[in-house]
Amino acid sequence: MKNTAQNLRIDGTRLWDSLMEMARIGATPAGGCNRQALTDEDREGRDLFVRWCREAGCEIRVDRMGNIFARRPGLESDAPPVITGSHLDTQPTGGKFDGVYGVLAGLEVIRTLEQHGVQTRAPLEVVVWTNEEGARFSPAMIGSGVWAGEFSLEYGHGREDKSGRTIGAELERIGYRGEVPAEPFPIAAAFEAHIEQGPILEKEEQVIGVVTGVQGIRWYDVTFHGTPCHAGPTPMEDRRDPVQALSRLCERLYGEVKAYSEEARMTCGDLRAEPGSRNTVPEKVVLALDLRHPEPEGLEHLHRALQRVAEEVQEATGSTIEIREEWHSPPVAFDPQCIDAVNSAVENLGYSHRKMVSGAGHDSVYVSRVAPVSMIFVPCAGGLSHNEAESAEPGHLEKGCNVLLQAMLDRAGIA
Amino acid sequence: MKNTAQNLRIDGTRLWDSLMEMARIGATPAGGCNRQALTDEDREGRDLFVRWCREAGCEIRVDRMGNIFARRPGLESDAPPVITGSHLDTQPTGGKFDGVYGVLAGLEVIRTLEQHGVQTRAPLEVVVWTNEEGARFSPAMIGSGVWAGEFSLEYGHGREDKSGRTIGAELERIGYRGEVPAEPFPIAAAFEAHIEQGPILEKEEQVIGVVTGVQGIRWYDVTFHGTPCHAGPTPMEDRRDPVQALSRLCERLYGEVKAYSEEARMTCGDLRAEPGSRNTVPEKVVLALDLRHPEPEGLEHLHRALQRVAEEVQEATGSTIEIREEWHSPPVAFDPQCIDAVNSAVENLGYSHRKMVSGAGHDSVYVSRVAPVSMIFVPCAGGLSHNEAESAEPGHLEKGCNVLLQAMLDRAGIA
Repeated sequence: MKNTAQNLRIDGTRLWDSLMEMARIGATPAGGCNRQALTDEDREGRDLFVRWCREAGCEIRVDRMGNIFARRPGLESDAPPVITGSHLDTQPTGGKFDGVYGVLAGLEVIRTLEQHGVQTRAPLEVVVWTNEEGARFSPAMIGSGVWAGEFSLEYGHGREDKSGRTIGAELERIGYRGEVPAEPFPIAAAFEAHIEQGPILEKEEQVIGVVTGVQGIRWYDVTFHGTPCHAGPTPMEDRRDPVQALSRLCERLYGEVKAYSEEARMTCGDLRAEPGSRNTVPEKVVLALDLRHPEPEGLEHLHRALQRVAEEVQEATGSTIEIREEWHSPPVAFDPQCIDAVNSAVENLGYSHRKMVSGAGHDSVYVSRVAPVSMIFVPCAGGLSHNEAESAEPGHLEKGCNVLLQAMLDRAGIA
Repeated sequence: MKNTAQNLRIDGTRLWDSLMEMARIGATPAGGCNRQALTDEDREGRDLFVRWCREAGCEIRVDRMGNIFARRPGLESDAPPVITGSHLDTQPTGGKFDGVYGVLAGLEVIRTLEQHGVQTRAPLEVVVWTNEEGARFSPAMIGSGVWAGEFSLEYGHGREDKSGRTIGAELERIGYRGEVPAEPFPIAAAFEAHIEQGPILEKEEQVIGVVTGVQGIRWYDVTFHGTPCHAGPTPMEDRRDPVQALSRLCERLYGEVKAYSEEARMTCGDLRAEPGSRNTVPEKVVLALDLRHPEPEGLEHLHRALQRVAEEVQEATGSTIEIREEWHSPPVAFDPQCIDAVNSAVENLGYSHRKMVSGAGHDSVYVSRVAPVSMIFVPCAGGLSHNEAESAEPGHLEKGCNVLLQAMLDRAGIA
């Protein structure tokens, strides 16, 4: 790599300003963002990104899953590109940085090269993946998942939100159902910059996380079936109360997960009782359960603990407990050369850093099935994410973006 | 009482046919009823009742809360009437008998007197109370509550369902916002026939429950506040997870309630997580909790157990637990003379019976504040109620109605 390129630095203020401008779309009173996938807000965010990319000289492609690819040509126009990107959709009470940072850091890399007239050998692409969050449409990372071949296009288009609207129809409605097939193409290297979404970097006062892989994740719908009866007359011992079964299962499983390992995670993100009348024992309670572990054996242990505890609780309470697995994403190890590219960039730049495993799933998980991948983490305040109070320091975001720039140049080569 | 009147018996087939005809309105595929207060189905049920009463020679009054009074004149037109009645609204997945039986048993008493040309000294009235269930509009028994002076008319009209529609507007819409003030008038005696909604009569093979009073009830909204964070990265010990707090509180409180007394009840009828996204620790969980006990001291004990367990769980989990009491209905003792009237009727008729306390709240609780009251219970299969499978034997319903007829004649006198 030429010396000039190694001395290139991104404009931290411009990056920050772009983040704040994007955050105005779907801004919430509490300072966060509600820009759920394929809503009007998501369309507005996509339109803004596309305009910025065109202003930076990129060509835009949109595929059939609504994934957006902004391409900066290289000297060798047929060479496999180096890509980077993340997502613009948010949780219903999400923050300003989750996903958005990875997209706009990619844009900032391209703006910086344009500004300094640096041409790369291989083309560069910035990608926006559709519906990463999984908040509006389950499962998460469906855009990158269809693209990488994990799900069929029909499956992707058919996923429904709570009101029954599908991804296919909503892509059409917001004008992002593209013509390009949603399928992999040759890629030289892929990177994704992201806030850590956990407290480790902040606690250890490190600026950059060199990400070597991603935790395994299993999603379940757990349904507790009871027998509705009136709140007053029926004695407690004659009841089949699904809330009793739910609370006992959760209480025990939280205990087992904590006892098993510091790296294990259990999240009960959604809960609802049906029919949900105050003076009637519910007919059923449905729990959305998320279990995670960085090792395949650990994840399998948690899975078996859930089955065992459910059987015990079923036996003890008389409720029937039905467990349906919604999604299983095994632990992922990233590409050694991409990890090295990030590591060398951080060392050359002289930033404090550590290697780490991602606790969250990311589009990079699916991309890693068809291309060499690594990720770059920066700290976020208190480790908070999926929260309107999500926050990151401008200096950290700038440094992460410099690492991204250097890692991409390393893999793309200077013309 | 004259001998003829003591030998009067109701027509069990006609009573059953009326129940089945009413059950067709809002019938559910599983054999139950969904005729929630002030819906189109409720209007249809009210219209049918009013038509039947007019055909039986009654005059109809509707008060400002939509309570319907069907009056059969007595020889002494100014004498305080003997009243009976219950409600026609149901739970969302309710049955054919809860409430409806009490209304149609009253109608059957009047039909029987008409048929045999029996004139009473005091007038008789059959009442339909508005929104007894509390399923669509909270609190329960609001129609009788406003009438008896427990709540103001403004409060009653202003209560909203989940979609923000008010009782006042819905009364107007279905044509049952009457002109008569919703306030008490002199009443000689009041009776309410009802299915037991519990398993005791069936278990003990008794036909009639002579009801001496009603359990005390306290309703709470319990809100568990947490800190939203991403399901993956944040270590378990750094979380403020409201589902952990909920499950521990429920698990402990169920234990305490069961250990305290066989007569104590705890019901968690509704539950919801917000924002309710699978891979985010919820910001909060809201629980609708119902505690019951037949003794004031017992109910107070449960109330204090809730406070204490909440404090312990708050301490242990870091979640903030907010307890808002929605409703408090102290235990009620019915009128000795009315209880005697029911008891004598049962003994004269020679039916098996026992005295009992109602586990469920009833409109009779509020009526008992301004008039002498008692209730008559008949068995229901498995003690099931607030359930589409709710069921009662025609023979039991007929016998309960004969008790009602004789008790009302006893208090009204034969002309």
